[in-house]
Amino acid sequence: MKVLVLNEGSGQQNHAEKRCAVSQDSVKRMVKRGITVRIEQGAGILAGYSDKIFTEAGAQIVETPGLVLADTDALLCVNRPAPEVFLKLKPRSLVVGYIDPFFQKALVEELAKHQLTTISMEMIPRSSRAQKMDALSSQASLAGYVMVMLAATHFPGILPMMMTPSGTIKPAKVFIIGAGVAGLQAIATARRLGASVLAYDTRAVVAEQVESLGARFLKIDLGETGQTKDGYAQALSDTQKQQQQAAQQDAIADADIVITTAQLFGRKPPVLISKDTLALMRTGSVVVDMAALSGGNVEGSEPGKVVQINGVTVIGTGHWSQAVARDATDMYASNLFNLIDEFYDEQGQKVLLPSDDEILKASMITKDGAITDQMLVNAYQEAQ
Amino acid sequence: MKVLVLNEGSGQQNHAEKRCAVSQDSVKRMVKRGITVRIEQGAGILAGYSDKIFTEAGAQIVETPGLVLADTDALLCVNRPAPEVFLKLKPRSLVVGYIDPFFQKALVEELAKHQLTTISMEMIPRSSRAQKMDALSSQASLAGYVMVMLAATHFPGILPMMMTPSGTIKPAKVFIIGAGVAGLQAIATARRLGASVLAYDTRAVVAEQVESLGARFLKIDLGETGQTKDGYAQALSDTQKQQQQAAQQDAIADADIVITTAQLFGRKPPVLISKDTLALMRTGSVVVDMAALSGGNVEGSEPGKVVQINGVTVIGTGHWSQAVARDATDMYASNLFNLIDEFYDEQGQKVLLPSDDEILKASMITKDGAITDQMLVNAYQEAQ
Repeated sequence: MKVLVLNEGSGQQNHAEKRCAVSQDSVKRMVKRGITVRIEQGAGILAGYSDKIFTEAGAQIVETPGLVLADTDALLCVNRPAPEVFLKLKPRSLVVGYIDPFFQKALVEELAKHQLTTISMEMIPRSSRAQKMDALSSQASLAGYVMVMLAATHFPGILPMMMTPSGTIKPAKVFIIGAGVAGLQAIATARRLGASVLAYDTRAVVAEQVESLGARFLKIDLGETGQTKDGYAQALSDTQKQQQQAAQQDAIADADIVITTAQLFGRKPPVLISKDTLALMRTGSVVVDMAALSGGNVEGSEPGKVVQINGVTVIGTGHWSQAVARDATDMYASNLFNLIDEFYDEQGQKVLLPSDDEILKASMITKDGAITDQMLVNAYQEAQ
Repeated sequence: MKVLVLNEGSGQQNHAEKRCAVSQDSVKRMVKRGITVRIEQGAGILAGYSDKIFTEAGAQIVETPGLVLADTDALLCVNRPAPEVFLKLKPRSLVVGYIDPFFQKALVEELAKHQLTTISMEMIPRSSRAQKMDALSSQASLAGYVMVMLAATHFPGILPMMMTPSGTIKPAKVFIIGAGVAGLQAIATARRLGASVLAYDTRAVVAEQVESLGARFLKIDLGETGQTKDGYAQALSDTQKQQQQAAQQDAIADADIVITTAQLFGRKPPVLISKDTLALMRTGSVVVDMAALSGGNVEGSEPGKVVQINGVTVIGTGHWSQAVARDATDMYASNLFNLIDEFYDEQGQKVLLPSDDEILKASMITKDGAITDQMLVNAYQEAQ
């Protein structure tokens, strides 16, 4: 089997990507399994992997990947490939990466039409068997860390308490909204740094996890809420949203740093903080909007930017895990390898992708000319 | 007594200063003591203190400070004032701030010639009585925190260990050279973040302190070394320097992040890391040079800049505590207030500055037309 990894750092895609779909380690492991790994030159540079490191790991560096696309069995990506790339692949080839399928209908239809088999990394289910392939979770963990570090860097004070002969600096107050994978890691990081941390999530079941990290859990009575079978928060009713916003206002106004991590699977994230609420915060406070890229939890946040709104610094950087590109690459590449490895048939030197496999049922979105994921098909129909 | 605080944020001085010589709290305390506090408009903005906050604390906001200089008893500064400012003060007025006297001979001579009484905050001695006025220490504590946060932000990985289904991320290796106030705070901060920390100092006596923070102490046998009576490291001989550099090379080559905090009182800091040594580090590693502003511990570091040298990110930002301008202002203002308060005579409504006071003997550098600090007089003579 021949896999190909492109250099996504030049930004021909939706943004200049620092991560790479393979790491030194994942190349070694693929080569050991008998897989031919081709990598476009410079693909790992921004993640700390030189062509030399990849060559030593057993990969072939290619200068003009366009020439080998027709001889490729699997294209491993971080971000969705452009049509001019995947249209050169032969039918039945495998494409794996973050496809963003709910918002990329035209692209998914192209992939299907060209008879490609596409696995969307966002769609890997949350099951114990799939954990090792769960790139959303691995990248969200890193995002949680990065968001706190960025907030701390923009905050005009320190996070820990400091007792000195010239007086005591109180610990900074951090309020984290959403206690999913990213939120929990943000809580852990802020606690490490000595901040006083309050957290909120519509799923009351996570209160214990939050408290086990040394943070307090904000209790807001919203009546009936819950989580989907995949562990995501369910969308709230309008009344619930208003109750939640009102109850959160006090916590936000009292905080030095607020981090919002409210994301909904396949939908636009909810707006949690209005400009009026921002105006209640002290000058110099910092708000991080994890969802800035997909619509935003914070009114006025801009994806990829740090902006000042009513005296508050609002960070909406977006591709969070890129700030720690080396570790993000290691984890993503490991997720990708684990996926290939799970379905690789060493005898036949190819991946076998049975349509009835639980993981593939959720994550394989095109095959044999069709869009094969029912959730996606439904979403496309709904949108019409 | 009338004190005046200028707006140093506009950068007429040596750099745009974010800190302010007074805080909301220090204004309140001075006003309570019967002192008239005048503040140039906007002086506290970058530290989070609006003119309104200062007014409410009891200060007078002045638009044109030049007009009140002749009616000022004490000029409270962060950085040394420009001659065009202090020449308008009446003789025998007090000037307090970071004067940088060892490197500002001409300015100090001007201050003396104009019959001003100058207290240099860098010269406050390290005694238990003077602790509460010790601005070098309070700002160095914050610098230690800031250096680690900046290093972490530029490092392409995370500092803590993270165990995930896709593999384990090892803790980052941080090597800290110099375990003074800044170094110890850097050690504490890196440890908080979960890094594996190694530290070195020529004063073997600090090993226990380093280890009590959860770091390891690098032992290098240099023969006879020691510390000055003020607790600073003594300058090393050339042979000792070579031994030290050789022994440190391994530790540097093995580190992900190196932070150098080696400063010598009144002298240029030693160069600890050559470009050749930088070349031994892994691509993406980060070096922070605390002493970049005064000559540098790292060959090629640039004050106020982040540069790439042999694949290593070298940070020489300089005015470290400015990154946490609010807390830095609170601590500096408190140091300054404690100094005034110590010598303030409420009856006579003025500061009494007895020449035989231990703190003033060390820190009062000009009075009655003369340079009064013997260490400084000696240094000026030596330099000729």
